[in-house]
Amino acid sequence: MSIEELRGRIDVIDEQLIRLLNVRVACAVEVGRLKHEAGLPVYQPEREAQVLSGVRQSASDLSGPLTSDAVVRIFERIIDEARRAERAAGSLRDGESRDGE
Amino acid sequence: MSIEELRGRIDVIDEQLIRLLNVRVACAVEVGRLKHEAGLPVYQPEREAQVLSGVRQSASDLSGPLTSDAVVRIFERIIDEARRAERAAGSLRDGESRDGE
Repeated sequence: MSIEELRGRIDVIDEQLIRLLNVRVACAVEVGRLKHEAGLPVYQPEREAQVLSGVRQSASDLSGPLTSDAVVRIFERIIDEARRAERAAGSLRDGESRDGE
Repeated sequence: MSIEELRGRIDVIDEQLIRLLNVRVACAVEVGRLKHEAGLPVYQPEREAQVLSGVRQSASDLSGPLTSDAVVRIFERIIDEARRAERAAGSLRDGESRDGE
């Protein structure tokens, strides 16, 4: 495959990654909403640790070219952005409920 | 959907993300190898800027829940890890060619 073909492939993969990342974060935002409704703490570090350990396992099963450490670093960023999106959705919700009072 | 079902969905998406990330980085490593063979500079900031601007556009077309800035931050990390994998593959190559001398 030529450099141009490989770059075309990377661009297609990036499109798929962006879609999947948005679906993933939409699920996380919905989890946040359900936890809020149930009066559960929104930040649950044990679930985060569980996700990262699952990710590390899957990454080492695939054996490359990304190392497990690299995959974990990418997921730390993804989880961080998911948390940010959850907070944004939460403030919107609180704003709405204040308006409704 | 319950919290448990949503978490199950997140875990499945994470598996798919890890696979796609590995294919993406394998393509980037191969681009690095071809550039090396052709005597081209391995670091091409204009291609990186092009990827990030494409990613920003796709993210804003999808309109959420991830903001374009969030998607760009995630891809900055992905590109960083791809570069690290390219360097690792490069040193392996150089080591091999030294052995072959």
